[in-house]
Amino acid sequence: MYGPDITFLGVRRCDLTNVDTYAGADVVIVGAPFDGGTSYRAGARFGPMAMRVDALRDLIVLDAGDVEMYSGDAVRSIAALEQAVAAVAAQGAIPIVLGGDHTIALPDATGVARHLGFGRVSLVHFDAHADTGESAFGSLYGHGQPMRRLIESGAVRGDRFLQIGLRGYWPEPPTLEWMAGQRMRSYEMTEIVARGLDACLDEAFAIAVDDCDGVFLSIDVDVVDPGMAPGTGTPEPGGLTARQLLDAVRRCAYELPVVGVDVVEVAPPYDHADITALLGNRVVLEVLSAIARRRGDVPWDPRQPLLDGR
Amino acid sequence: MYGPDITFLGVRRCDLTNVDTYAGADVVIVGAPFDGGTSYRAGARFGPMAMRVDALRDLIVLDAGDVEMYSGDAVRSIAALEQAVAAVAAQGAIPIVLGGDHTIALPDATGVARHLGFGRVSLVHFDAHADTGESAFGSLYGHGQPMRRLIESGAVRGDRFLQIGLRGYWPEPPTLEWMAGQRMRSYEMTEIVARGLDACLDEAFAIAVDDCDGVFLSIDVDVVDPGMAPGTGTPEPGGLTARQLLDAVRRCAYELPVVGVDVVEVAPPYDHADITALLGNRVVLEVLSAIARRRGDVPWDPRQPLLDGR
Amino acid sequence: MYGPDITFLGVRRCDLTNVDTYAGADVVIVGAPFDGGTSYRAGARFGPMAMRVDALRDLIVLDAGDVEMYSGDAVRSIAALEQAVAAVAAQGAIPIVLGGDHTIALPDATGVARHLGFGRVSLVHFDAHADTGESAFGSLYGHGQPMRRLIESGAVRGDRFLQIGLRGYWPEPPTLEWMAGQRMRSYEMTEIVARGLDACLDEAFAIAVDDCDGVFLSIDVDVVDPGMAPGTGTPEPGGLTARQLLDAVRRCAYELPVVGVDVVEVAPPYDHADITALLGNRVVLEVLSAIARRRGDVPWDPRQPLLDGR
Amino acid sequence: MYGPDITFLGVRRCDLTNVDTYAGADVVIVGAPFDGGTSYRAGARFGPMAMRVDALRDLIVLDAGDVEMYSGDAVRSIAALEQAVAAVAAQGAIPIVLGGDHTIALPDATGVARHLGFGRVSLVHFDAHADTGESAFGSLYGHGQPMRRLIESGAVRGDRFLQIGLRGYWPEPPTLEWMAGQRMRSYEMTEIVARGLDACLDEAFAIAVDDCDGVFLSIDVDVVDPGMAPGTGTPEPGGLTARQLLDAVRRCAYELPVVGVDVVEVAPPYDHADITALLGNRVVLEVLSAIARRRGDVPWDPRQPLLDGR
Amino acid sequence: MYGPDITFLGVRRCDLTNVDTYAGADVVIVGAPFDGGTSYRAGARFGPMAMRVDALRDLIVLDAGDVEMYSGDAVRSIAALEQAVAAVAAQGAIPIVLGGDHTIALPDATGVARHLGFGRVSLVHFDAHADTGESAFGSLYGHGQPMRRLIESGAVRGDRFLQIGLRGYWPEPPTLEWMAGQRMRSYEMTEIVARGLDACLDEAFAIAVDDCDGVFLSIDVDVVDPGMAPGTGTPEPGGLTARQLLDAVRRCAYELPVVGVDVVEVAPPYDHADITALLGNRVVLEVLSAIARRRGDVPWDPRQPLLDGR
Amino acid sequence: MYGPDITFLGVRRCDLTNVDTYAGADVVIVGAPFDGGTSYRAGARFGPMAMRVDALRDLIVLDAGDVEMYSGDAVRSIAALEQAVAAVAAQGAIPIVLGGDHTIALPDATGVARHLGFGRVSLVHFDAHADTGESAFGSLYGHGQPMRRLIESGAVRGDRFLQIGLRGYWPEPPTLEWMAGQRMRSYEMTEIVARGLDACLDEAFAIAVDDCDGVFLSIDVDVVDPGMAPGTGTPEPGGLTARQLLDAVRRCAYELPVVGVDVVEVAPPYDHADITALLGNRVVLEVLSAIARRRGDVPWDPRQPLLDGR
Repeated sequence: MYGPDITFLGVRRCDLTNVDTYAGADVVIVGAPFDGGTSYRAGARFGPMAMRVDALRDLIVLDAGDVEMYSGDAVRSIAALEQAVAAVAAQGAIPIVLGGDHTIALPDATGVARHLGFGRVSLVHFDAHADTGESAFGSLYGHGQPMRRLIESGAVRGDRFLQIGLRGYWPEPPTLEWMAGQRMRSYEMTEIVARGLDACLDEAFAIAVDDCDGVFLSIDVDVVDPGMAPGTGTPEPGGLTARQLLDAVRRCAYELPVVGVDVVEVAPPYDHADITALLGNRVVLEVLSAIARRRGDVPWDPRQPLLDGR
Repeated sequence: MYGPDITFLGVRRCDLTNVDTYAGADVVIVGAPFDGGTSYRAGARFGPMAMRVDALRDLIVLDAGDVEMYSGDAVRSIAALEQAVAAVAAQGAIPIVLGGDHTIALPDATGVARHLGFGRVSLVHFDAHADTGESAFGSLYGHGQPMRRLIESGAVRGDRFLQIGLRGYWPEPPTLEWMAGQRMRSYEMTEIVARGLDACLDEAFAIAVDDCDGVFLSIDVDVVDPGMAPGTGTPEPGGLTARQLLDAVRRCAYELPVVGVDVVEVAPPYDHADITALLGNRVVLEVLSAIARRRGDVPWDPRQPLLDGR
Repeated sequence: MYGPDITFLGVRRCDLTNVDTYAGADVVIVGAPFDGGTSYRAGARFGPMAMRVDALRDLIVLDAGDVEMYSGDAVRSIAALEQAVAAVAAQGAIPIVLGGDHTIALPDATGVARHLGFGRVSLVHFDAHADTGESAFGSLYGHGQPMRRLIESGAVRGDRFLQIGLRGYWPEPPTLEWMAGQRMRSYEMTEIVARGLDACLDEAFAIAVDDCDGVFLSIDVDVVDPGMAPGTGTPEPGGLTARQLLDAVRRCAYELPVVGVDVVEVAPPYDHADITALLGNRVVLEVLSAIARRRGDVPWDPRQPLLDGR
Repeated sequence: MYGPDITFLGVRRCDLTNVDTYAGADVVIVGAPFDGGTSYRAGARFGPMAMRVDALRDLIVLDAGDVEMYSGDAVRSIAALEQAVAAVAAQGAIPIVLGGDHTIALPDATGVARHLGFGRVSLVHFDAHADTGESAFGSLYGHGQPMRRLIESGAVRGDRFLQIGLRGYWPEPPTLEWMAGQRMRSYEMTEIVARGLDACLDEAFAIAVDDCDGVFLSIDVDVVDPGMAPGTGTPEPGGLTARQLLDAVRRCAYELPVVGVDVVEVAPPYDHADITALLGNRVVLEVLSAIARRRGDVPWDPRQPLLDGR
Repeated sequence: MYGPDITFLGVRRCDLTNVDTYAGADVVIVGAPFDGGTSYRAGARFGPMAMRVDALRDLIVLDAGDVEMYSGDAVRSIAALEQAVAAVAAQGAIPIVLGGDHTIALPDATGVARHLGFGRVSLVHFDAHADTGESAFGSLYGHGQPMRRLIESGAVRGDRFLQIGLRGYWPEPPTLEWMAGQRMRSYEMTEIVARGLDACLDEAFAIAVDDCDGVFLSIDVDVVDPGMAPGTGTPEPGGLTARQLLDAVRRCAYELPVVGVDVVEVAPPYDHADITALLGNRVVLEVLSAIARRRGDVPWDPRQPLLDGR
Repeated sequence: MYGPDITFLGVRRCDLTNVDTYAGADVVIVGAPFDGGTSYRAGARFGPMAMRVDALRDLIVLDAGDVEMYSGDAVRSIAALEQAVAAVAAQGAIPIVLGGDHTIALPDATGVARHLGFGRVSLVHFDAHADTGESAFGSLYGHGQPMRRLIESGAVRGDRFLQIGLRGYWPEPPTLEWMAGQRMRSYEMTEIVARGLDACLDEAFAIAVDDCDGVFLSIDVDVVDPGMAPGTGTPEPGGLTARQLLDAVRRCAYELPVVGVDVVEVAPPYDHADITALLGNRVVLEVLSAIARRRGDVPWDPRQPLLDGR
């Protein structure tokens, strides 16, 4: 919708209204340029354009372009995106949705669940915020509420909801109590620092694959410290480093049966020298390369020297 | 809605749900932090906060704070703002609405027309764009369409619609034909340069006061050249200077029976050193001081030295 | 070369190595992403990408993409661009070259002169600087010297060289004397302010069409005041307004037999909110719309109201 | 003094000239918008406004607004602030001073010591610089000298002065020798990296509570790496991460008997997307929440999951 | 004081404590890096460094470097600068002071008046603000008060005080009445637009040379519109264009007996791509070239073509 | 070449054409303001000026100023720089070259090898990219190819080439195979995170000193995460922290026989608040202080408190 008509790293364009154009794909990229759900800074509508940067092998990756999402009509926009994601999932491809604000996690995970079954998809959620609010500005749909809607609808089970990187002074106690009542598992930055990120991920991964058929990965770029990811709408100091996020995402996509991904809250107006857009792009590339490795037959070891075996 | 709870220049806060708090006011400031209607860059939701800067006498000016406007629901937001503006107008005060994107001109002028009568208010419209589109992104409501909706509803007569500062490569011929069919009068920058801004204003003012009971003034800050007003969503090079806009607005509010004003499309994320926010603030101050002068009994002459008569 | 593979306003791509792809064109856009000639701030290599923004009728306009220009090899890059421009001109189309630094005016005007004849093309040159240096950093080729090379080679006659907008503290007297010896005509900003821009243009146009077969238009965006065009490499305060440049360029392309154009020195790293890139884009659009009008049969009058005759 | 009249997170305003307005408070916020002491970049005068952002329970927190501090008169400004801080401390409340440049640590810690006794307050000082200079620009008072003045006056004992995060190429040997002579304990970043931050804090805390009645916490935001805190006047690469500072400050306020705090050197003109202002705000919030936890009866463990026990 | 030790355009350094180093000079540049007088944004301390950019003939111009001015001590700093300016004037050279905030106009004009006689110097003052306040933040010395102090002391007669470019909503009526009582002549932007800048200057010049021995030129860069001069502390929309200021300053220095100059309120932290610093530099260069022309014997005509007579 | 004529931290200027000016030096700083080799963002030509900031003892350090390097002629510029570096090395001084883009590593290391012998210098290379490309834009010389040229010429042995910090999606497999064939040792960020940076350095140092007479240290600032070093041309998320780079560089210069250094790819147009320029400056200072310590007789221990032994 915004900016030049380019695809992610130049992959082939597909047309979601024509199944022939994406049948057989491994991954389909979908842009979701929506920021009508933001409670504070808008700008994430330009995230999909900013994250589509530069080559890929091993996987059949297509780009379906942006879904038409009018920021002034959240309900209609959510419905359109859910339909697009479900169409991709129905073909057995992994939808990767470039947001847009976090409102879109609702249609993203729901669209996948419509294919795999409600309650059969667990959710690994990197974010500074829990996004489990009841409502905001008089609306049930916005970037502070998608996780609540997903659990309420049954699309995702509360006890298969893994949140990584929370911090700050939200949510309020009643919301925390609702979250505890749903048996969500939320890892705050203090816990991550005290126990180590890898130990937390080990634990979370065990929950995510227990009695579930796939994992949806939802990555809010504000999980990273604002110093390394300034281009976002609701920055919260004290986050992961960019290196930590890239390594964690690589582990997720290599170790878990990922069935859908979204990368959200990249807001270019607040970025500097494109560093947040580049980070969003690299997060997607880590997902893609780790999925390809997972499907290959050579096990991956982070300690192996780059040039070994060549 | 966004930022600290301050009023425009520190004027008294009023509560639109309680008539006692604003009965007798000359002017009521209303914030409209909405940018769900933008077709390109969002950010104007922070415009009301940014324009509320620093003192006033002679007029009773109140600030009603921001109307709750969820950018993700344009229809509901427009209705809420129209009601607020109508409430102010019903008390005989002049509503000054700080936007927000230009979507809000629809409820702003309609709210005033509900008090003065449909077709009884003319509209003087400073803008780089005509904003007379039929629809965009599948919606009738957005920042490219308010002027069409106003004429279609009969709130404002097409032949009392005066547009100042148009330029660029929009709208398309069918829209221009619709505009001509409505007998709108649109002054492009080329005409303004060739004939002089004051000559164009003289002509426009004569039309505006012909068989109308009041004038609504709608000022899109992008009428000014982007060099002097970079903080806006759809910049178009080649506009008025800031000085020209201030002088023109002063003439409008001094020479015309202004019954409502909006100042829109100030988008702080794209601003530099607050210069666009300051310009928006000064536009409102020029309106206020000119209204006060109009109600006074000493005629104003721009050629008079500042210290004369003191 | 840099950024996504898009064309100017989405016009059809052509391939300069295949004449069939551009035979019959009215205009061919060529990108020249070169800034190896800059004596101060580089960055103009991103100018072509930044100026290719958004519709056209009446003319057949194609975009040949960027010529490969390695900033680390000026001589080779100049030769490649001259060949590209000459290929376009040989088909009777008007080349419009998006720079890049002003080094490229040498191959641009030379390429056109190779088709029309050396000395048969006059040059209208908007710039803050004369660009008539003998050499810099030990090189004859750079953004301070192209105009000297053009006159020395005989591609353009010195007495058909019209410079608009000069100011600042360069060049040194020996260079001024060389310029006077060539009978160049250079309009400083002080002369333009004192006499009026239109009077200066009237005079310049008369010289430009005297005993010449075509006019090359070279527009350095730094002719505009840095406040309205900050995204450039060697800003000089006190220039034209953006409005003045757009109106002047429109006059040139409507009143003169333009045979080639370049728009140079747009340097995005120094821009803010894209305002200089937008200005560069609008300069090209003014050229295109004025050429179309010139070929039409309805005379154009800047004083005519926009909606008249519709 | 600068910007709108808001309080920190909307807490109640108090008036330091009227004891009734702050008697019984746990904490009083005081703004110190002074940057006349800066030896390099000014701008910290806007720090108090920028750090007053967004709710609090458990503690009675008031905001006394800004002390009038004219940057052009350091001596008068220091005296006014010392009086304000002493007034707060005299009521048994903890003053939290939002600077301003680090000059203000002198009146801040002195004001507290006037209540608790000279030599009875230890000082934990997070900073990239030691701030123990003899004089600068002919003045004893400035942001490079407050710690020397505090020790010279006896307000704080040199051997109860704990500095965390020093790095860079200052101070010169004579100043280091003076510091050693005072038996200060300064932890450089290299020591912190080699030994671990928590080990250094353990050691420092033991010194801080030895034969002292309270701890003053002085946090210069430049202790954090400039990548995560660019909005400051004298940035020095190679600092703590934002996460490390937040965790360290939380430990200080939870484990130590804090009697006063200042957060200084937030300089908005050099910030980007407000990330440094947000960090300053979060530092204060960590202090407040940790003080509340310290007064509660449930011990805090960073390893405990967020939702446990709810 | 700040930044590398360079001189204005590389002119020879002189030492104000050694008369031999500047006896015989035509002009001496003095830096005044002081911003302790600012009531709003500081940053002008970096103005002198930013304005010292790049060649001169015909005049003996020296650079005395920066006077030590501690922003935290306005009274001491003012005294030091007045002494420096008086030393230069006593040698018959024209001091050109690079500020710094406008506080310094007090020592600048006083220093000159100490040489020429109190009441014998008129003052031409380009500014958006009158700077005639009684006091601010409890101090008589700051950037809002220098003009009052100059008239009160008798250094400059009120009826030889010419202010160009005033606008905005300050000062308050009592200050305006004081100004009128002093018989100052203040040209607001509205008067300048209505009558033309050259007509206003003609009138002002006649007053300035009536019964005075020299003219001090004080140029606050905020007289220019913030779009063209964003790097300043108290921007006010609707000012002169950069072109207008350069032409006006050239007229002043060519037509009037200038005996001292200051250029103030260039604040780099708020600048973009150095455009305001460049403007400040060009203002000084216009002064220098016009003084040289005034001393030459060839009359200057702005309408004369650049290359005529070479 | 660009900016004022200052030296690194004010050290004495030397003249490479006159051996007497630098005979006996320990270190000579050389500026290499070249960015004609960049394949993406230029701007590194301003790196040398930006990194020359602010005092040194113990070592004789001189600054030779900038070598004339015309970005439009890579071949000539490389030859000029190689000659300058060789001249310094021939006097037994350590050349420290401030780039400029990474193209210059070719003449830098070659210039040193001409003195010590081809194949006798090992190379420790901090970078996000391997810089071992065959060619780009039709040229063998550019910032993506220097390391290949160095190995091909025999100046540096492939099996003494240690690369630290690689990441991202380049180079392509054929280049990796070429690198493996040369027996280079490249440490990716994933390996560094998994094994620890110090363990990797221990291993690399052992290789570097095996059968070699000296070590050249080449530091591309993009090895650091873009959040902490945004001012660079080809940022890649997920890098070292600034602290890690400073500590690693200190270890290199303290533990290894360093014979030459370059610090490259600092590109000020993309920087914010000078943080990347400051980092480049601090990298050089760490090198200098560690060399001085290495030559001293007191062993250095990072765990030693700052004030111990004073």
